[in-house]
Amino acid sequence: MSQPASTLAAGMAGTAGTVETQYLDLPQPVPLDCGRDLHPVRVAYETYGVLSPQRDNVILVCHALSGDAHAAGLAKVPSEESTRDGFGAADRDGAAGKGLGWWDGMIGPGKAFDTDRFFVICTNLLGGCGGTTGPSSIDPATGRPYGADFPVITVADMVRTQRAFLDVLGIERLAAVAGGSLGGMQAMEWAVMYPDQVDAVVAIASTHALHPQGMAWNAIARDSIMRDPAWQGGHYYGTGRAPDGGMGVARMVGHITYLSAPALDDKFGRRLQFADDLRYTITEPEFEVESYLRHQAGSFVKRFDANTYLYVSRALTYFDLARQHGGGSLTRALEGVAARTLLIAFSSDWLYPPKASEEVARALRDLGKPVEFEVIEAPYGHDCFLLEEARQTPMIRRFLAQGGTG
Amino acid sequence: MSQPASTLAAGMAGTAGTVETQYLDLPQPVPLDCGRDLHPVRVAYETYGVLSPQRDNVILVCHALSGDAHAAGLAKVPSEESTRDGFGAADRDGAAGKGLGWWDGMIGPGKAFDTDRFFVICTNLLGGCGGTTGPSSIDPATGRPYGADFPVITVADMVRTQRAFLDVLGIERLAAVAGGSLGGMQAMEWAVMYPDQVDAVVAIASTHALHPQGMAWNAIARDSIMRDPAWQGGHYYGTGRAPDGGMGVARMVGHITYLSAPALDDKFGRRLQFADDLRYTITEPEFEVESYLRHQAGSFVKRFDANTYLYVSRALTYFDLARQHGGGSLTRALEGVAARTLLIAFSSDWLYPPKASEEVARALRDLGKPVEFEVIEAPYGHDCFLLEEARQTPMIRRFLAQGGTG
Repeated sequence: MSQPASTLAAGMAGTAGTVETQYLDLPQPVPLDCGRDLHPVRVAYETYGVLSPQRDNVILVCHALSGDAHAAGLAKVPSEESTRDGFGAADRDGAAGKGLGWWDGMIGPGKAFDTDRFFVICTNLLGGCGGTTGPSSIDPATGRPYGADFPVITVADMVRTQRAFLDVLGIERLAAVAGGSLGGMQAMEWAVMYPDQVDAVVAIASTHALHPQGMAWNAIARDSIMRDPAWQGGHYYGTGRAPDGGMGVARMVGHITYLSAPALDDKFGRRLQFADDLRYTITEPEFEVESYLRHQAGSFVKRFDANTYLYVSRALTYFDLARQHGGGSLTRALEGVAARTLLIAFSSDWLYPPKASEEVARALRDLGKPVEFEVIEAPYGHDCFLLEEARQTPMIRRFLAQGGTG
Repeated sequence: MSQPASTLAAGMAGTAGTVETQYLDLPQPVPLDCGRDLHPVRVAYETYGVLSPQRDNVILVCHALSGDAHAAGLAKVPSEESTRDGFGAADRDGAAGKGLGWWDGMIGPGKAFDTDRFFVICTNLLGGCGGTTGPSSIDPATGRPYGADFPVITVADMVRTQRAFLDVLGIERLAAVAGGSLGGMQAMEWAVMYPDQVDAVVAIASTHALHPQGMAWNAIARDSIMRDPAWQGGHYYGTGRAPDGGMGVARMVGHITYLSAPALDDKFGRRLQFADDLRYTITEPEFEVESYLRHQAGSFVKRFDANTYLYVSRALTYFDLARQHGGGSLTRALEGVAARTLLIAFSSDWLYPPKASEEVARALRDLGKPVEFEVIEAPYGHDCFLLEEARQTPMIRRFLAQGGTG
C-alpha cells in the first residue's frame, strides 16, 4: 500500500478527505425501458482517490434506496441531516454528526475500496433527490417539477445513465462496480448489460430479484406515501405540503426490514420510554422502540423526497435479471457475464437473504464463471452491509487484489 | 362422541349451526388498569353447544386483533364482508362467502372445541367494534362516540370484562379458556388473574409478551392510522370521513406479518398482475402480491373501526405477564396458575414465534405446573392458527379429554 500522503497531510488519516458533490449534464437523452427518452439529465457525483493516467483504476460504487452520491469522506458542506443517519438503520457511531459518507468505513486509503489504489466514483442514481435528475427536477415540457409525470425507471435505466456519465468522463472500463442492496443490483446489471466493460463485480446483501415479501414491503411503503392526501397525485412541489406522514410510515417499515428481530431485542428490548410506568396513551410512544421509529421517520422526511422513494422502490421491485435478460432463466441471463464476481451476504439479512446471492453464485458457477460467495455470520440484518466493515474489508481487498488493474 | 343430531337435522353436519350474535349489558362499571371505571359496558357474544345443568362445561374462546364474536357456525345475518375473510390472512376455502365464523374449523360438533360436549362462548373483546363497548360507542358524558376519549385498555381489562359478563350468565368456572394470538394472551391472563376459576388454558400462536419487532409493526400500524388526516384526532365518527387510507396500510403490514416469506413465495411468486409485461406504472399494481394487498386493505376498512384497531393494538403491545404480575419475572408471574396449560406454536410463525410459547412452557414446568407444548411444522406463518385445523384438533381434543369436566 502506498502512503495516503495527501490525506494524512489534510489531517484526516483513514478518510477520503473533504469532498464536494459535483454535477455533470449528459449531452444526450437517456433511452428508458419504458420507451421514453429522458433529457436533460444531470448527474450528481463524488470521487475519491486519483484517476490513473490509463484510466484503468475506476471503481463505480452504487448506492441503495435512500442513499446519495456522498459515499465517503467529509462533506465540505455537511447537510443538516447526514445521509448516513438515515441510510439503512445504521447510526451506531455518530457518523451522522460528522458529515461522513454512507460507506465511509469502506472507501478510503487502506480501506476495502482503497483510494490509494483506486479512483472511486459514486453517482446519485437516476430518479434520485441528491442532485441527479429525478421527479423533483424541472420538466422541460412544463417548466415545473415532473412529480408523477417523471417516467417510470428501472435499474437498467440507472445503469445506462451511469454508462453515459462515464462516457463524458472518458472512462471506458470499470475495474469494478460495487454496491449493497439496490447498489448490488446495479452492479450485477452492469455485468450483464456491459460485459466487456466491467472487470469485477462486488454485490453485497443483494439479489437477482426481490422475493415476494420484499416486494410487499415496498408496495406497502409506496401505498403509504400515495395514500397521504398531501401527495396530491405526485404534484406536491411548491404547494407547501408534502406527504411526510405517509413517507414517515414508509421509512419505519423500511427500518424494521433492515434490522433483524434479535438486533431489535438487543437494541431496545421492551424498555419503556419513561422509566416509571405505563402512561396509558394511544398517541404517544410508551416504549423505546416506538420512540426510535418516530425519530427515524422524522429525520428521514427532512432529507428525502417522497417521489424519489416511490420511483426507486418501483425500480428495485421490477429488477429481475432472469425475466429481463434470460427469458425467465437466471443462468441464461448471466451467460454473457465476463466479470469476476464477489457476492457477500449476511446470515441475519431477511430482506436480501443469503439464498438470493447463493442463487446467483450457483448460476455463475454452472456457467464456469469466476465467482466467490461469502456469508458473514452477523446479527444486524440487512444493515450489516453498512456496519460489518471489519469483516467485509479483507474479503473485498483480497478479491480486488486478484485483478490485473489499478 | 355423541351424534350431533340437531346440527345434522339442520342440514349442516360439522358446523355449529346457524347462530346470531347476542348482547348483554353489564350491571356494574368495569374498573380499568388506567384507573378509570367504564360504564355502561355492553358485551356482544355468541354461544355454541349446550350449557350443562352444572354449568361446568364452558369454554371461553377469545379472539385476536381483528376478530369478533362470530367464531363459529353460519351467521343468521351474514355481513357483507365476513370476518373470516379479513381475519388474519386466511381466506383459503371461501368460508368468507358462506358467513362462517373465524374459527369454524375448530368449533363445532366433533371438532377441536367439541360442541357436543362443551358450551363454547365467544365474546367480542372490550374496545371492539363488533358490538361490545369500544371507541365507536356513545360516551354517556357527551352523548357522542368516545373516539380517542375512550380509556386506554389492557388485556387484563378485556379479561375483567369477560369475567363480569360470565357472572351475569351465572358461570363461575371455565372448563377452558382458549385463543390464538391476542386470544391466547387473554387465555393466559385468565389463568393468572382468576386461577381458581380456570381448569385449562389453550394458548395458540401466542406469547407472554410481544417481542420488539412485533411491537414495532404494531407501532407502525397505529402511526399509519393516526397520521391519516381523516383520523381527526380520533373523532372522525359522523364526519363522513374515516382514516381508511392509514388503516389500509396498517392492515397490509399486518397481513405480511401474519404470513411467512415462503408462503408468499408459494402464493404469489413474482407473477405479474397482467400476463403480458410490465406496464411501467407507479400508482397501479404490477404484481399479484401488490394487487392482493390492496384488495385486503380495501375489504378490511369496510368492516373494521380504526380506533378499535388502535386501542387493541396498544393493549396487545402492553401485554407483558412478567411485568404485570411478576415484577419482571415470568416464573413469579405464573406462580399462582392452577390450570393445566396447552401451548401450540407454529414453526414458521415469526410474529409469535415458538420461542415465546417455549418460555411460558419452561416457566410453568419449572414451577411444577402441568403444561404441554407442541410446535407444529407448517409453512403459513402466524395464520396457521386459523388454517392448521387438522393438526391442532387431535392435540386439543386429547388435552381437553384429560379434564374431569364436561
